[in-house]
Amino acid sequence: MTLPFIASGLAILYSFCLMHWVLKQPQGSPDMIKIADAIAEGSRAYLKRQTINTFFIAIPLVALLAYFLSLNTALGFLLGATASAIAGFLGMNMAVKTNLRTAQSAKKGLKSALNIAFKGGSVTGMLVVGLALLVVSLFYLVTKDLQALIGLGFGGSLISVFARLGGGIYTKGADVGADMVGKIEKNIPEDDPRNPGVIADLVGDNVGDCAGMAADLFETYAITLIAAMLLADIVFKQTALVIYPLTLGSLAIISSIIGSFFVKLPKSRKIMTALYQGLIASGILALILFYPATAALTATLTGVSTMALYLSSLIGILITALFVLITEYYTSRSFKPVKTIAEASTTGHGTNIIAGLGISLKATFLPVLVIALASLAAFQLAGLFGVAIAATSMLSLTGIIVAIDSFGPITDNAGGIAEMTQQPAEVRKVTDSLDAVGNTTKAITKGYAIGSAGLAALVLFSAYTQELTHAGQALKFDLGNPYIIAGLFIGASLSYLFAAYSMEAVGKTAMAVVKEVRRQFKQIKGLMAGKAKPQYGRCVDIVTQAALKQMVVPALIPVIAPLIVGFCLGAEALGGLLIGSIVTGIFVAISMTTGGAAWDNAKKYIEAGEYGGKGSLAHQAAITGDTVGDPYKDTAGPAINPMIKILNVVALLIAGFLA
Amino acid sequence: MTLPFIASGLAILYSFCLMHWVLKQPQGSPDMIKIADAIAEGSRAYLKRQTINTFFIAIPLVALLAYFLSLNTALGFLLGATASAIAGFLGMNMAVKTNLRTAQSAKKGLKSALNIAFKGGSVTGMLVVGLALLVVSLFYLVTKDLQALIGLGFGGSLISVFARLGGGIYTKGADVGADMVGKIEKNIPEDDPRNPGVIADLVGDNVGDCAGMAADLFETYAITLIAAMLLADIVFKQTALVIYPLTLGSLAIISSIIGSFFVKLPKSRKIMTALYQGLIASGILALILFYPATAALTATLTGVSTMALYLSSLIGILITALFVLITEYYTSRSFKPVKTIAEASTTGHGTNIIAGLGISLKATFLPVLVIALASLAAFQLAGLFGVAIAATSMLSLTGIIVAIDSFGPITDNAGGIAEMTQQPAEVRKVTDSLDAVGNTTKAITKGYAIGSAGLAALVLFSAYTQELTHAGQALKFDLGNPYIIAGLFIGASLSYLFAAYSMEAVGKTAMAVVKEVRRQFKQIKGLMAGKAKPQYGRCVDIVTQAALKQMVVPALIPVIAPLIVGFCLGAEALGGLLIGSIVTGIFVAISMTTGGAAWDNAKKYIEAGEYGGKGSLAHQAAITGDTVGDPYKDTAGPAINPMIKILNVVALLIAGFLA
Repeated sequence: MTLPFIASGLAILYSFCLMHWVLKQPQGSPDMIKIADAIAEGSRAYLKRQTINTFFIAIPLVALLAYFLSLNTALGFLLGATASAIAGFLGMNMAVKTNLRTAQSAKKGLKSALNIAFKGGSVTGMLVVGLALLVVSLFYLVTKDLQALIGLGFGGSLISVFARLGGGIYTKGADVGADMVGKIEKNIPEDDPRNPGVIADLVGDNVGDCAGMAADLFETYAITLIAAMLLADIVFKQTALVIYPLTLGSLAIISSIIGSFFVKLPKSRKIMTALYQGLIASGILALILFYPATAALTATLTGVSTMALYLSSLIGILITALFVLITEYYTSRSFKPVKTIAEASTTGHGTNIIAGLGISLKATFLPVLVIALASLAAFQLAGLFGVAIAATSMLSLTGIIVAIDSFGPITDNAGGIAEMTQQPAEVRKVTDSLDAVGNTTKAITKGYAIGSAGLAALVLFSAYTQELTHAGQALKFDLGNPYIIAGLFIGASLSYLFAAYSMEAVGKTAMAVVKEVRRQFKQIKGLMAGKAKPQYGRCVDIVTQAALKQMVVPALIPVIAPLIVGFCLGAEALGGLLIGSIVTGIFVAISMTTGGAAWDNAKKYIEAGEYGGKGSLAHQAAITGDTVGDPYKDTAGPAINPMIKILNVVALLIAGFLA
Repeated sequence: MTLPFIASGLAILYSFCLMHWVLKQPQGSPDMIKIADAIAEGSRAYLKRQTINTFFIAIPLVALLAYFLSLNTALGFLLGATASAIAGFLGMNMAVKTNLRTAQSAKKGLKSALNIAFKGGSVTGMLVVGLALLVVSLFYLVTKDLQALIGLGFGGSLISVFARLGGGIYTKGADVGADMVGKIEKNIPEDDPRNPGVIADLVGDNVGDCAGMAADLFETYAITLIAAMLLADIVFKQTALVIYPLTLGSLAIISSIIGSFFVKLPKSRKIMTALYQGLIASGILALILFYPATAALTATLTGVSTMALYLSSLIGILITALFVLITEYYTSRSFKPVKTIAEASTTGHGTNIIAGLGISLKATFLPVLVIALASLAAFQLAGLFGVAIAATSMLSLTGIIVAIDSFGPITDNAGGIAEMTQQPAEVRKVTDSLDAVGNTTKAITKGYAIGSAGLAALVLFSAYTQELTHAGQALKFDLGNPYIIAGLFIGASLSYLFAAYSMEAVGKTAMAVVKEVRRQFKQIKGLMAGKAKPQYGRCVDIVTQAALKQMVVPALIPVIAPLIVGFCLGAEALGGLLIGSIVTGIFVAISMTTGGAAWDNAKKYIEAGEYGGKGSLAHQAAITGDTVGDPYKDTAGPAINPMIKILNVVALLIAGFLA
């Protein structure tokens, strides 16, 4: 039980070293600093308000948990919520410092820009896994209360759903609003300083893609660890096996730190290859370390096969590799899907959207097939615990995955700063090519998060049935039972309802931004000519208000729905609901995150000179596709993952009362 | 066992009387006749080729069924396929004759146009239910072989999936292609005679919305009857109960014929009210007739409660009513959702699409909740047979529902003929207002078809488990079993994959049309000035080729997938697949059909003068939304229903081999 503390300590220490290194890098010219400061200020102000609002909603929940369950559970909830908020805040804070330095180093070329952006991203990645492993291990060590650990997961998930929703509505409301007037109506480039919505858009990248993503992966990592520990306790009642998931997490953190040194631009100058090198090194190292750890564990136990457990962990790493490859295929500018959308843009807005929707639907098939077959294989090897280990092992690489993801929004912001301070075109070209790869890696992380939820579905469901059994109600969940079917349908509807609210929220926010941006272009004389300055702050205010207001209703859906279904239709229907939500959730999430990234990169493909390049009819259509893809990939899609987790955690917490 | 023959005879007789009456109505001017003839010729030519192609695929299946199952099953398959094809062909044939007469009568005003269009639609409606009831009853009477009836359902479903796909790709490939150049690039009205794609577009309405819809509802009606009969046999082993679904179907046909006389334009001149009158009258009459029939049946049996069965049938009628109201809310120009999309169009293409996608996601919640709660209630009343009776009763109104639906594409075509022959604007206004209501009723029919599939899911699933039990393998389908979960995920992925192929097919076809239409505008001198004629035939050919080619792959998915999953992963996984496909299928289908109709009517709302009316920026954005909604509502969405039925039927047929 010392290893998790060593590993999480290492991760946190390493991230502080990186932070120190990044902060020493040159910041660029005063006008760049000025813009970066404005972005940082807006981001911090928003995140502060979002956190305060969220905690106001969390306080009654703490009281309810303490009253109905236990003080430990309530404390766990508070700890999880606080740690998730800290992960988000630190991740974002690092991003707003790295963006400027990346913009400056982009003047020197691709290699140095990638280096700084990736190191900045690694800070977030290592902090997320370090903090998650630390709080789970510490809380378990102190309380030995697995029930209370569920509370910790709940806290993390609640913050995460608010962060994904609030951040997502913010970032895409601003982005869509700014783009629709700037790029489509006024035909000025992205991030042009004349656009009144540009600062809000850049703030959005940080609060959504950095803070929201960090909180999301924090909860995904923590919940998966907790579910595996819970299952080990239920199935084997052996402390050694309960700690095993923490061991795998620890070893993978060490592997990820070493692996991150392999991220170097190769001679081919392919950015994706650089990132793959780091990921592959981390995965291989993790697999090398997992074997002796597994052998040492099973040597002390009877009836548990080393190979069965080890191969289950291998399956987890394999799923990650396949997810990365599949997502790259569907979202990279080098393959057919993105090119198809780009080609469809030549015939107009409508065919662009139809092609993109087709790709987004299709992109779900292979990932889901991988999850289905992998869970079967893991089950054959080591039963339900095998599935839990596969999920843990899959998520154990979260540190390096987040690092690979975070560099995307950092370079996106760096590009914005370059554009606003009118740097030479080469600088923007460097940040653009990093940003395009970032779209793919962002889609990978989101697919990875929801994919792990699909894999963990069986584990969480069985934890739920075991809770019911403990409470004296052993149920069968047969598909021939109409309560199960009704629960399945209702659960399935939640992903759709939740996604609908998210899309609506972005639509409304974007419309408000469009109106304000149009107003400024009309009323501020000389704005279009570059002689007057826009009122950036007005747009920031509009988006802040809208995001804070509109995140509340969808975020409460997963808290309230299990209570209604559980207490009105019973424990069987609630079981159906859990499975139903993941069955549609995985499709809604993957189709949206992958489809959105494909639309974005189809636009970038055209901007790189294909089909008439910037300003062509195809480009206009591609911008529409990108606009639609924005809330898909950055608001509705990624928020599904924490939503499903909350459903499961709430069901686990109320199981005792249903029986 | 004489009632079904009397009722189906009446339905067929009544439809021939209506046909006779419609054909006597004035046809209009020679130029109108010429265009209607071109549409009819294109429609018949396409449908003939589609039917021939489909039968080539069906022949090896007949041989396989005869070899592996029984001659009866193979004969049933052939009968089902033939009857479904006939229903489609007759429905379309009537539509291409009614369109012209509706255009002519629109000169006299709304009342007479509605009268002719609805009577033409009633021909299709009565033929569909008459034929379906006739073949199911006759085949059962002759063979008494319920197994072979499943073959009949398979034949109907296979034709139906090809008709929905082929017709859907045809109609929307042509529509989208013609609109994108005509309306967006050239800014000429819909159905303008200068547009080279216009005849293909009008042909499409007939082969997709008329023939495809008729085949689809034929199979939905037949499969639901068959599933209810199968369940009655399995659960009760009483012939009287096996015939009960046929009795309900017969009585509802008589009610629908009488109800159709209540369709008359009221003083408020609200078209929807006219249609509601007919539907409400049919529903009330059916409920009045169901009671004595149920009482007479239960008097001869022990252990079956009259009220339990009767209330189950009441639930079915109630679901229909709720579906109609919910769909009208989401798709009519009078309510918030459509107005929201229209408003979002004022800020551009992107916000229009985002708003439409939001509405399409949200529109799934209430219908699915209705289905979930209704199936629970019916189960409480009379067990699984109660659910089967609710489904049968829901679909028993198919005759009047199809009549209400079919008048939509007929008036759409009538509008096209009016536009092409440059009739006064009032004529177009009459057909447009009928067409807008038609969008809502089309969405109702599609939601109704997939909704009944949701309700029948439990029945079909239990028929599958019973087949396995008969074959000596009594299985439990517990959600804790990883094979069930893997099956659920794979089944769920089929709806997405199928929809993706459908969207892709429309996108590709539309792009081909856009290129051809652009070419003609460029190369044919004087076309835009109206001095030269376009080559309509070229577009018809392109769309025909594309539709026939691209319908094959998606149509084979539901035939092949259950074989692979069943024989590779086993009967449990296949059971999971069946439920998984309906869980995502109902959402994909309802979101697409309702969302598509909402987009279309948002455009019509703007065209009626809101937000700047025709030619405004909002109108351009609304056209993009309509374009995207087209394949959603008329290709991918509606084809999901027969796809799910095929999955179930194939599973039922192979169950004996899996055990």
